[in-house]
Amino acid sequence: MNKNKTIYLDHAATTYVRPEVIKAMEPYWAEKYGNPSSLYSKGREAKAAIETARQQIANVFNCQPTEIIFEGSGTESDNHAIIGTALANKSRGNHIITSAIEHHAVLHACEFLETQGFEVTYLPVDKEGIVKLEELEKAIRPETILVSIMFANNEIGTIQPIHEIAKTLKRKNKDILFHTDACQAAGYYELKVDELGVDLMTINGSKIYGPKGTGALYVRKGVIINPFVHGGGQEKGKRAGTENVAGIVGLATALELAQKEQVKEAERLIKLRDSLIQKLLQIPKVVLNGHATKRLPNNVNVTIKDIEGEAMLLHLDEKGICCSTGSACTSGSLDPSHVILALGLPYEMAHGSIRFSLGHCNSEKDIEYLMEVFPPIIEKLRAMSPVKL
Amino acid sequence: MNKNKTIYLDHAATTYVRPEVIKAMEPYWAEKYGNPSSLYSKGREAKAAIETARQQIANVFNCQPTEIIFEGSGTESDNHAIIGTALANKSRGNHIITSAIEHHAVLHACEFLETQGFEVTYLPVDKEGIVKLEELEKAIRPETILVSIMFANNEIGTIQPIHEIAKTLKRKNKDILFHTDACQAAGYYELKVDELGVDLMTINGSKIYGPKGTGALYVRKGVIINPFVHGGGQEKGKRAGTENVAGIVGLATALELAQKEQVKEAERLIKLRDSLIQKLLQIPKVVLNGHATKRLPNNVNVTIKDIEGEAMLLHLDEKGICCSTGSACTSGSLDPSHVILALGLPYEMAHGSIRFSLGHCNSEKDIEYLMEVFPPIIEKLRAMSPVKL
Repeated sequence: MNKNKTIYLDHAATTYVRPEVIKAMEPYWAEKYGNPSSLYSKGREAKAAIETARQQIANVFNCQPTEIIFEGSGTESDNHAIIGTALANKSRGNHIITSAIEHHAVLHACEFLETQGFEVTYLPVDKEGIVKLEELEKAIRPETILVSIMFANNEIGTIQPIHEIAKTLKRKNKDILFHTDACQAAGYYELKVDELGVDLMTINGSKIYGPKGTGALYVRKGVIINPFVHGGGQEKGKRAGTENVAGIVGLATALELAQKEQVKEAERLIKLRDSLIQKLLQIPKVVLNGHATKRLPNNVNVTIKDIEGEAMLLHLDEKGICCSTGSACTSGSLDPSHVILALGLPYEMAHGSIRFSLGHCNSEKDIEYLMEVFPPIIEKLRAMSPVKL
Repeated sequence: MNKNKTIYLDHAATTYVRPEVIKAMEPYWAEKYGNPSSLYSKGREAKAAIETARQQIANVFNCQPTEIIFEGSGTESDNHAIIGTALANKSRGNHIITSAIEHHAVLHACEFLETQGFEVTYLPVDKEGIVKLEELEKAIRPETILVSIMFANNEIGTIQPIHEIAKTLKRKNKDILFHTDACQAAGYYELKVDELGVDLMTINGSKIYGPKGTGALYVRKGVIINPFVHGGGQEKGKRAGTENVAGIVGLATALELAQKEQVKEAERLIKLRDSLIQKLLQIPKVVLNGHATKRLPNNVNVTIKDIEGEAMLLHLDEKGICCSTGSACTSGSLDPSHVILALGLPYEMAHGSIRFSLGHCNSEKDIEYLMEVFPPIIEKLRAMSPVKL
């Protein structure tokens, strides 16, 4: 174990909370700690903090603050968007379309709906992970009520043509609701809901240097959605429970900062990303997963043939490098990545995939260190490997 | 407005986060920020923090750590307990029993289930707010699968005979699941699940000097419960989403401290509580709501006849005093408290109820200050009141 050095290359799994966010949350622990539902000044002060945060997020989304629901995580927001609208709009139809490469928060919400009488089409993607518009068009039925397609994939970083998807959908039937999970994209792309053409959109704090346990769901005015948690009247009755005031303030601060720095940071990371991709591809039998340019500025995902991702990950950990195989949410599982499989790659290729996701703290030096320690690990593991692709 | 002084007498609405808890959470913002699902050391460190917190809570509950699910609030935990077990056990029956004075997190979860084919009995309470065991016994049917009765009421502080309720239930049918919402009780009573005889129990952070946006649900081993959020495998698949590591650590720290100080703090607060009750009852036409002794150590709830609670609250706010009418979660509503109405008191009496809930920061001096400013407010408001009870 390298005791002196930790090179964090797993920002897609989660980010640290940035100092500005910690500072913004601070007053809400022991000073402005009132319950936002309380009528006295200490309660109103907490309520005002939430409404300021709601306005900050609305400014980024270019929507009304009343169109924002605060949630307890990105996963919860995805669940609320999908299950909440499907159940509320059941009388209009029972068909949902999503893609085969969505986050499990979306896929498992859809699978739950399949047990409740809904039918779900899981759209295939091309070799680079992009949803095919013609497949989407073919999948639309008269009973289709909801489409959920992620903005950017968490494993391979592929960016979907959200605006074109929205246009395709609305041309066919303007009543079909369109949700996008923008958790991975929120740090690097504009999130103006009208330009994207979405009716619902999910973001969370833990991927944009904000606090874990926070999320926000955009719900276009007029969209009918069930409550996700029943109880008090918080979030207009759509998500009951005393609000996580500090977390909400932290989320809004993180989003505002991320959006302000977005262009510059994306530019910086694209250079780092492409430098790392180029170096990795110089190693024999290494293949890039996902699209070369239509990918998140911070995402590098490659398959190192003849090796298992988990073995690489643990050897890299010994050298102080944090990275990932598949998504963090499923890294406890032995199943190969459903995303890599959906690209049409064989099982063995999926097992050898590894993701490096860059962030604020990374510089060219980290890439140099990685490229110093990684090739010998690959060589060693390949020498032991019974598989040859 | 009293600019120099804030006397917080609304600890049942929410508490500040105590310094030990803020300190315990601190390392998890920007240092130990790994995703607990990540396989490398930074992930394992976060996972270990969660498992330590789970063990701390299990120690208090005297249960196995595997029986604890971390949730996003007390309300969410109540929802998960009730909706999650009802839907999972529907084949065994469709009848649920609860009380008329539960928190809306329980009542509205039950009302949701009524839209899903379930029948709910809302047990009446006696004049002091205690559930009648004979009514419970009468309500049990062959198709009863779940009973949810709160440990301590959030408005009037009445303590329910949880152990006797459990015994009554299990004598009739040991398969009936028993959930208790112990959010208000967690700071003042032992929470050993076997001694209480519960199968499910809810606590949260925001009432015990822990962070808002946190909760924990005890689910006895063998109890079948549906997931509340679908996605990754977190919380054994019962509540997906990246864990709020800092919040979980904060919740466990707060509970451990509360339980350690419980006996001493309860004793101190009972003295303060009874001193305040005695002084309030010396004012003409003031009635205590709830039970004289079977009540939370920190709860004072009285009806001041001929006045509306909200008017008192706003006048007290001007003097720097924070208190409440009904529960915080419904204080935006104009409806009178369902709890006070359930005691059999008329509408006008419910409207004149006011709650003072004491906590760490309060001393006899605060009571003296309250009793200095409150009687003139009462006098003034009564002089203006058209109602005479």
